[in-house]
Amino acid sequence: MGSIAELIKIIGQKARLASETLRIASTDQKNNALINIASQIQQNKQFILDANDLDLKAARENSIDDALLDRLMLNDERLDSVVEGLHQISTLVDPIGQISDFKERPSGIKIGKMMVPLGVIGMIYESRPNVTVDAAGLCIKSGNAIILRGGSEAINSNIAFYSCIERGLEEARLDPNSVQLIKVTDREAVTELVSASDYVDAIIPRGGKGLIKNISMNARMPVIKHLDGVCHTYLDKDADPQKGVDIAFNGKTRRYGVCNATETLLVHKDFDSEALSKLIELFIKKEVEIRGCEKSQMLSNVIKKATEDDWSEEYLAPILSMKIVDSVDEAISHINTYGSAHTDAIVTENNVNSKKFLSEVDSSSVMVNASTGFADGFEYGFGAEIGISTGKFHVRGPVGLEGLTSQKYIVMGDGQIRP
Amino acid sequence: MGSIAELIKIIGQKARLASETLRIASTDQKNNALINIASQIQQNKQFILDANDLDLKAARENSIDDALLDRLMLNDERLDSVVEGLHQISTLVDPIGQISDFKERPSGIKIGKMMVPLGVIGMIYESRPNVTVDAAGLCIKSGNAIILRGGSEAINSNIAFYSCIERGLEEARLDPNSVQLIKVTDREAVTELVSASDYVDAIIPRGGKGLIKNISMNARMPVIKHLDGVCHTYLDKDADPQKGVDIAFNGKTRRYGVCNATETLLVHKDFDSEALSKLIELFIKKEVEIRGCEKSQMLSNVIKKATEDDWSEEYLAPILSMKIVDSVDEAISHINTYGSAHTDAIVTENNVNSKKFLSEVDSSSVMVNASTGFADGFEYGFGAEIGISTGKFHVRGPVGLEGLTSQKYIVMGDGQIRP
Repeated sequence: MGSIAELIKIIGQKARLASETLRIASTDQKNNALINIASQIQQNKQFILDANDLDLKAARENSIDDALLDRLMLNDERLDSVVEGLHQISTLVDPIGQISDFKERPSGIKIGKMMVPLGVIGMIYESRPNVTVDAAGLCIKSGNAIILRGGSEAINSNIAFYSCIERGLEEARLDPNSVQLIKVTDREAVTELVSASDYVDAIIPRGGKGLIKNISMNARMPVIKHLDGVCHTYLDKDADPQKGVDIAFNGKTRRYGVCNATETLLVHKDFDSEALSKLIELFIKKEVEIRGCEKSQMLSNVIKKATEDDWSEEYLAPILSMKIVDSVDEAISHINTYGSAHTDAIVTENNVNSKKFLSEVDSSSVMVNASTGFADGFEYGFGAEIGISTGKFHVRGPVGLEGLTSQKYIVMGDGQIRP
Repeated sequence: MGSIAELIKIIGQKARLASETLRIASTDQKNNALINIASQIQQNKQFILDANDLDLKAARENSIDDALLDRLMLNDERLDSVVEGLHQISTLVDPIGQISDFKERPSGIKIGKMMVPLGVIGMIYESRPNVTVDAAGLCIKSGNAIILRGGSEAINSNIAFYSCIERGLEEARLDPNSVQLIKVTDREAVTELVSASDYVDAIIPRGGKGLIKNISMNARMPVIKHLDGVCHTYLDKDADPQKGVDIAFNGKTRRYGVCNATETLLVHKDFDSEALSKLIELFIKKEVEIRGCEKSQMLSNVIKKATEDDWSEEYLAPILSMKIVDSVDEAISHINTYGSAHTDAIVTENNVNSKKFLSEVDSSSVMVNASTGFADGFEYGFGAEIGISTGKFHVRGPVGLEGLTSQKYIVMGDGQIRP
């Protein structure tokens, strides 16, 4: 018991201390660290791939499923994109110290908001080892110390990445404790980390629903949750038929296992019927199973009957639920009832309907005439993302540099006193 | 047990339902509600004052101290300022639906952030009954439902205010459950409210340290903390001497019992010595007790010796701690060590030092050449404030309309699909 608690306390204290210097580090220093880490990874590709092999071998021995093996696996191309991600983060504008909303008040004082780091982030994640580098990179650039706790199945890959991070920080003359990796794979380390509210300012869990619920229940500090994506595409009566087909098909089939994949297709009863037939054909050819409402079932005899549970299911698989609706209001109400407030899209050329959809759908990303597949930090221009927040508190949607900052008010006077 | 839990659940369900309509209410409807509530209060002044008399009488019977009695007391003037506050909030720009940071991405999609309400706020506060109206007003305008839980000592005043709020909402054809007041004064209601994470999106406690710590430990949802204010004024060597005297004196003596009062005066060893003598004289005349470091004690024999505890004490009284420092760095380090990250001011004409102070002091408000007394939602132009957040998460500093919102990403495409 005592020893893991003590370990996390020491890690926490070091992180807090490191955050004090990282907070005021110059943009150049932080960018240097990112570039150094990138070149360390470049130079040590084989070392990292060897470590990854150990993880893959162990995973196969534990008969882990293919989807997880795929997430765990590194290769030359994936390492290149990790390196590319770091370079991109280094070219982004440093948010720290930026001042916005500067205005003068009747008293003569001037007030603005200055962006500042949150402090220390605790990151708990599973399988994908590249998260180690993405998260470290975003935290370094945003001036936050980070404590990483990856999945035990990726421990060797994470340790290999971490040695690159450590060296990159040292070369940039930044405290290597700015990024720390918890190397013990004991579950108790997570429990201790989420209780260490004296040292950790926010927890970001990234993984299955079970992990996130468990952390939310036990954490003593705010949690930026990355929950499930039950995303919808709605084809309005005033949709351009071809856009409707393309966007719905891409939203569902681009990748099945990602959180921004469309899981439910909503179709206005007056949407172009030829286009709809074509879309259904495309899905059938692609071997996507469709589970529909009664009206949908009349469109094709391969469409199975959807149960009530289907409407809130995140399939992460070639399965799509489908419903015919009478109006944009019914579509919005369905989304707000069954969706997970992640990402939802409308296809329409009707400005009134798109405006209504944008205002009333209460999701982290709401799209008009674009595929739900775009909900992603990279596509939004954040360089990388540390997760997609489905909560409304602090930050929502893809979380990049800005989501890792807070602000302070700065007040400029000329001797003003308050009556 | 069961009945209070059941009551809070019902209140929570009603709030959640009301939040769904308030979320998409028009600006006019929300402003009408504010103006209606204001005129209800105007018309029912005597009714409210009579209710307040009941509270004051009970408080005196319980021999409650003068400071608390003062916070509890309403009078004509205070009611006028409550009414004025509502009118001000009604004139502020509606944050909901506002879009910022709209930009085009290489894929051709356009992305912006739209402000949205948080949902349902749980507000737990003590004594001051005007918080009932301020909090309700800010939440209505920002499209949030609110559940109010005021102190038992103000229950009659709060019920009187609440009846005005209810009628004001009804007249504006808004769900009166948009604002609800918990009328049972049982402590269990607080415990239930902070556990009702299915219905409440954020808790805002406003009161003593004990209340806030207790809530933070037990809450199942994010807490916007309004903690203590150990505020500093630092007189730099390059300060304008007269501004230094004015700002330090005003910061400490404007009002003693407020969280933005200066509690510690830091003075550079080369600050104008005549001005410092004058300042000390002013404090002595005003009967402010000074507790200083060794060097300060050499300036006047009425200056008592400060103990280590004094540096982190929020006096809320005519007591001031004082320390002579060798540099702006020492001042910053003292503030970051002993302060409560609320509000800190530097007085200087030296741009390098003011920039350094602004960047490195890690507080919710950092000021240059202005009195700490300005840290206030009204002074910052927010109309009113629901509290001053000393946390870094979600919102920091005075919390007005914007602090009660979240954002969502809106994405506009023209048929784009993601490769």
